[in-house]
Amino acid sequence: MSILREMDNMKKILCPGFKAAGIASGLKKNVEKDLGLIFSTVPANAAGVFTRNRVQGAHILLDRERIKSGLCQAVVINSGNANCCTGKQGINDAKNMARLCASELGISEELVLVASTGVIGEPLPINKIETATPGLVKALASEGFYDLARAIMTTDTVPKMVSTQGNIEGKTFTITGIAKGAGMICPSMATMLCFVCTDLKVSPEFLHKSLNSATKRSFNRITIDGDMSTNDTVIIMANGLSKATMTSSSHNHLFQNMLDNVLTSLAKKIVKDGEGATKLVEIVVKGALSDTDAYKIAGIVANSNLVKTAFFGEDANWGRIIAAAGRADVPINPDKIDIFFDDIMMVKNGLGCGKAAEAASTKVLKKPEFTVLIDLHQGKGFSSVFTCDFSIDYIKINADYRS
Amino acid sequence: MSILREMDNMKKILCPGFKAAGIASGLKKNVEKDLGLIFSTVPANAAGVFTRNRVQGAHILLDRERIKSGLCQAVVINSGNANCCTGKQGINDAKNMARLCASELGISEELVLVASTGVIGEPLPINKIETATPGLVKALASEGFYDLARAIMTTDTVPKMVSTQGNIEGKTFTITGIAKGAGMICPSMATMLCFVCTDLKVSPEFLHKSLNSATKRSFNRITIDGDMSTNDTVIIMANGLSKATMTSSSHNHLFQNMLDNVLTSLAKKIVKDGEGATKLVEIVVKGALSDTDAYKIAGIVANSNLVKTAFFGEDANWGRIIAAAGRADVPINPDKIDIFFDDIMMVKNGLGCGKAAEAASTKVLKKPEFTVLIDLHQGKGFSSVFTCDFSIDYIKINADYRS
Repeated sequence: MSILREMDNMKKILCPGFKAAGIASGLKKNVEKDLGLIFSTVPANAAGVFTRNRVQGAHILLDRERIKSGLCQAVVINSGNANCCTGKQGINDAKNMARLCASELGISEELVLVASTGVIGEPLPINKIETATPGLVKALASEGFYDLARAIMTTDTVPKMVSTQGNIEGKTFTITGIAKGAGMICPSMATMLCFVCTDLKVSPEFLHKSLNSATKRSFNRITIDGDMSTNDTVIIMANGLSKATMTSSSHNHLFQNMLDNVLTSLAKKIVKDGEGATKLVEIVVKGALSDTDAYKIAGIVANSNLVKTAFFGEDANWGRIIAAAGRADVPINPDKIDIFFDDIMMVKNGLGCGKAAEAASTKVLKKPEFTVLIDLHQGKGFSSVFTCDFSIDYIKINADYRS
Repeated sequence: MSILREMDNMKKILCPGFKAAGIASGLKKNVEKDLGLIFSTVPANAAGVFTRNRVQGAHILLDRERIKSGLCQAVVINSGNANCCTGKQGINDAKNMARLCASELGISEELVLVASTGVIGEPLPINKIETATPGLVKALASEGFYDLARAIMTTDTVPKMVSTQGNIEGKTFTITGIAKGAGMICPSMATMLCFVCTDLKVSPEFLHKSLNSATKRSFNRITIDGDMSTNDTVIIMANGLSKATMTSSSHNHLFQNMLDNVLTSLAKKIVKDGEGATKLVEIVVKGALSDTDAYKIAGIVANSNLVKTAFFGEDANWGRIIAAAGRADVPINPDKIDIFFDDIMMVKNGLGCGKAAEAASTKVLKKPEFTVLIDLHQGKGFSSVFTCDFSIDYIKINADYRS
């Protein structure tokens, strides 16, 4: 049994046996926090999922190698600079970030992973990180996750954290997740930065398998702007310090279920905080010939600029939804399609349901969160994708990002 | 020999043996022109290319059937209503539009094609069209193309027309093209509404072949917002009234070349008039392993919201360009990539060229038209796509479109 707690007071979020910190090192303007660290008091089993973009940040190349050991004791993360398209110097800088932390922590540098997020193509100011590292390690605290969550933000407006506890035969364990991301977010790829800590003892193999599965159900089902990042990273660490131990497949299911919930909750927080977003919308497709078909259509609709601007305009413009569905390269029969906004049927058999339905749908669109259900009436295929609306502020944020 | 003339005075554009008209029938608010007609004084050979969206306007279903005859004498076009997702009534309405015109013109209704553009999912007010048709036919004039071009506009801010003359053995012939489109525009599909008239005698087979080829080189290489329309239509009519006759393959090449130029010119006009657009940008990809790979990358970059908002912000943010290239699912080597803004090298071997290059690139981005060249240094594959920037006005236009 477990309950996902979205704690009112994020400052109290923790995970037994882990410490975290977030400080300002001068990478960002305005002395904002930009350097974070997660540390497990003992080496933890670990797994990672990384971007499938062909252009990848330097830290990804390093982490992919190190994660093969299935072990990790610390992750150091900077925002304000993606350390991507930075050549050999970028790789050296990522290694240096890890080495500096390892040295200060007194652990092997092979046990330190790295993550970076921010502007692509500018050299990482490693000297600032070098100067800041001793202070970063000193700042480590059990309740440091909130500072960490703030230190990894870029265009995010809120820190994103969630914690959940389960128990196995009366013994409690915790899963705590931290994520960042508000732009360059699109499904069918890894995710943005996300770090998950648990004090449960989980084998690296099962961690890897369950992380992959949970990522598919969460971060691969969100989109903000259809742009895949070069630096997407999810890392999970399990330090085994809880007294709870997994001894049966039902415990595996419990863990998987809790991890799914943690990542899905974080994924939704990312979309909700999408650049300029004012609405969180779930695009549900059912009745497709296959789940894959349903996912394709949900993804195309969720990424349609015309659909997303209509959401922003609170306009129940279902024509744009059906037009987007039509270009998903999936066989559909337009004359069979029903579309609902929450529980309001707006389209039946491909035809609009009239003024009253439109008025009721418009009310739904005024809500900060709602669901669009597209029923194809062809089969049992089902999928859903979370998206946000597309607002004037998205343009403002991204026209001005580097200036 | 031919020269593409972008006539200063569009009102003077014509095509021998063709008449056109554009009037207001009440489909649009504010008594704007919304009903157009092209009429050839004799039945013309004809070909058409239509949307590949699985959801298609009623007129597309009708036109696909009728164009099989290779003959057409008139095209009637309305804006303000897409007559799409309108069921059987929509098909009947499209047929009625054709029949009303045919009757008024005194020709067979099988020789009349139809096109509609505007909001999806609302019944076509056929009674307004019925009332307006006699006036529409009366308004036909040789110099009526300008009125036609205005009557088919939706969110377009300018009419789009181009005319060119060639000669074969001293005999002159004309190709005149009219297009509309400013939103729901994306490559790899047919196009928006476009009508091409020529007084050259061209067989339906060659018309079809050359239209397909020219469409691939023009409308399939533009994007505004990545959204494929349900109503995209290009129709070409050749009435053979010129004294010029094609007798050799070099004449075929001449015609193909002129048609390519006419459609490319119209396609660029569409992007330049893209909803909210302030810049016309050509994304050129060279050095790919194949033309297909180059096209994929050019399309992904041209459709990236992050790239397009950076253009709007006049920010030479090449990191977004390389990140978009990286998600094109095409093998690339980031360390070999060069990127130019016009003739300014901004990226060499995957690394930024520094402050001076950035300052010079920023100057290029301030221009209303410029080129981004991505050289992959892998092979001889080449392609280019025209796109526009993504501005605050795009959001405003599309959040408010139906209200």
